[in-house]
Amino acid sequence: PANKKLLFLPGDGIGPEVMRQVRRVIDWMDRKRGVTFDVSEGLVGGAAIDAYGVPLNDATLAEALASDAVMLGAVGGPKWDNPTDYTKRPEAGLLALRKELGLFANLRPAVVFDALVDASTLKADVIRGLDIMIVRELTGGVYFGEPRGITDIGNGERRGVNTQVYTTSEIRRVARVAFELARKRNNKVHSMEKANVMESGLLWRQEVTKLHQEEYSDVTLEHMYADNGAMQLLKNPKQFDVIVTDNLFGDILSDEASMMTGSLGMLPSASLGAPDANGKRKAMYEPVHGSAPDIAGRDLANPCATLLSFAMALRYSFDLDEDAKLIEKAIQNVLGGGMRTADIMAPGMARCSTTVMGDSILREL
Amino acid sequence: PANKKLLFLPGDGIGPEVMRQVRRVIDWMDRKRGVTFDVSEGLVGGAAIDAYGVPLNDATLAEALASDAVMLGAVGGPKWDNPTDYTKRPEAGLLALRKELGLFANLRPAVVFDALVDASTLKADVIRGLDIMIVRELTGGVYFGEPRGITDIGNGERRGVNTQVYTTSEIRRVARVAFELARKRNNKVHSMEKANVMESGLLWRQEVTKLHQEEYSDVTLEHMYADNGAMQLLKNPKQFDVIVTDNLFGDILSDEASMMTGSLGMLPSASLGAPDANGKRKAMYEPVHGSAPDIAGRDLANPCATLLSFAMALRYSFDLDEDAKLIEKAIQNVLGGGMRTADIMAPGMARCSTTVMGDSILREL
Ligand SMILES: CC(C)[C@H](C(=O)O)[C@@H](O)C(=O)O
Ligand SMILES: CC(C)[C@H](C(=O)O)[C@@H](O)C(=O)O
Repeated sequence: PANKKLLFLPGDGIGPEVMRQVRRVIDWMDRKRGVTFDVSEGLVGGAAIDAYGVPLNDATLAEALASDAVMLGAVGGPKWDNPTDYTKRPEAGLLALRKELGLFANLRPAVVFDALVDASTLKADVIRGLDIMIVRELTGGVYFGEPRGITDIGNGERRGVNTQVYTTSEIRRVARVAFELARKRNNKVHSMEKANVMESGLLWRQEVTKLHQEEYSDVTLEHMYADNGAMQLLKNPKQFDVIVTDNLFGDILSDEASMMTGSLGMLPSASLGAPDANGKRKAMYEPVHGSAPDIAGRDLANPCATLLSFAMALRYSFDLDEDAKLIEKAIQNVLGGGMRTADIMAPGMARCSTTVMGDSILREL
Repeated sequence: PANKKLLFLPGDGIGPEVMRQVRRVIDWMDRKRGVTFDVSEGLVGGAAIDAYGVPLNDATLAEALASDAVMLGAVGGPKWDNPTDYTKRPEAGLLALRKELGLFANLRPAVVFDALVDASTLKADVIRGLDIMIVRELTGGVYFGEPRGITDIGNGERRGVNTQVYTTSEIRRVARVAFELARKRNNKVHSMEKANVMESGLLWRQEVTKLHQEEYSDVTLEHMYADNGAMQLLKNPKQFDVIVTDNLFGDILSDEASMMTGSLGMLPSASLGAPDANGKRKAMYEPVHGSAPDIAGRDLANPCATLLSFAMALRYSFDLDEDAKLIEKAIQNVLGGGMRTADIMAPGMARCSTTVMGDSILREL
């Protein structure tokens, strides 16, 4: 019986084509591993704006709330750019999903694949074997704080305002995720903010320190100003194990860390909510890369990040660690064999399409 | 007659020792170039907290306001860390100087010196010849926005708030600096914000676009989300000429760009106010690196960033472009000759102290 409810939201740009490869892996799991998912599909982002006039409609949101996990492709594109109405932007669909599902912890691994170590603009020595987990707060901070908006203040002047706000419990719950992850990894957490100029950052530092003392003193904790964090990531990335930071700093720093690996097309992410009475968390999984409108529909995109996001879903939402490992191993082997989509192409390798990459991974499985 | 008023604020940590080398260059200018400065000196940061109980006292601020330029070393150190009172932090002195002098445009060049191309963790090909000018807004945004603070909200919960705010004129004046600089460089400006999630960023984008259309349509303008900016800096830094961004994004992105060059100890900065009736701007010059308490007082620090900041002062505040070039050239020659302070030491080079680096530069002059 298919009691594993999965909602597919392919979204815009290359979203649909990379998600197609996940469908194929799901079919394989059904046939070969005896694991059956109940998959439904919906629209989000620009695709939903075109169909319904809003980037996320109520029916789709209800589906998401009723699912064990959401698999998202990517949202956005020039077609829907710069409307003056914020609620009509593709991004608003993504932000609404995060907020309504309560997905406060965004897990973004920055991992360097051995086969791709030369793809980075950083020296191989600096990044070989890199394995950082960034935990970004995802439902608070300046992304959602009120008041916000643009107002006319006379004399041809306007004023744009956003509010950065965090509370004790918002900070504690995301820090807890970071500490728990660190215990299963290398037991070290770096917390990043600007406590030297922002009170919200000072509160962040104080609350993380308190939680650490109360419950996680076995984990090594260091505080770092976010600007210094941006530098230390470049100077000596291997000093980091788990990094926990707020929504906005997390947006910037995790993108920096992703690009450092040189393989953006390979990086998955998971966004998790609070555990319910049965320990189950709402969850959404998506590749770190965007919708890449320039190559959309041309069978050029790298499906690996999305497939690895699905592996994260298997691990975190469905307790299928073994299957997750099979997928991860298959991808590693295919890379080891020299297969490369355009984004990670290198001399001497075999360039392939999205579909052929999917073929190879399925063959490997 | 010494009508060139210069205020020295050496500050904390390595500040005093790197500033001492500037004094020597000033003496040389007096003797050999017939240029005399009226130099006074004051305390800021931790040094001022120790002496006066505040990180910037009224007398020092008055001196700064009466000077043509301020030369700042660095502020901060563990001794003054984490007080609960924000107004008693070393950083508050720096922030007060910026705000009271109205230094809204922070110019931070990210330049790779040929002799130091291998010092970066990035591949030499990626950064050789790099020359980016980052213009960071410095008196607005979340650094100064109200309301701000930490409040008790009951049930053991606290709430930390900061406000990100920008007005039309704040955005226009800093964008204007960026466009003017671009015209003297490679005529390209990238403006960075998060217009896709923040209204203050949307206003930023709209106002920069408007000013560009009205007065600077000869300059190439591109908008980029700040997270993408953090990635593009790493992916292909040479695509950039001038980058203009807000206070907080500027803090992070300019530190990322600085560290990319591999020679933080070499990077100067200038902070400029609005031109007065005579076209003169209030100005402060300081190295990009911090106070480095770990090596303070040991004659190990690299004085080049501070000397290059002084060269910027000669150029922007005193119209002494020729003298600025002499200093820049002397530093390049000394590096070319193999002299290296510890921070930029490399195999086959001659390691030297702060003082010996100063000696060599003076000999070169
Ligand atoms: C698309 C955008 C709203 C989003 C964000 O800023 O969070 C993206 O950059 C991300 O990191 O998921
Ligand atoms: C010391 C600190 C307040 C300051 C800032 O955040 O602006 C520093 O990081 C800088 O970039 O000059």
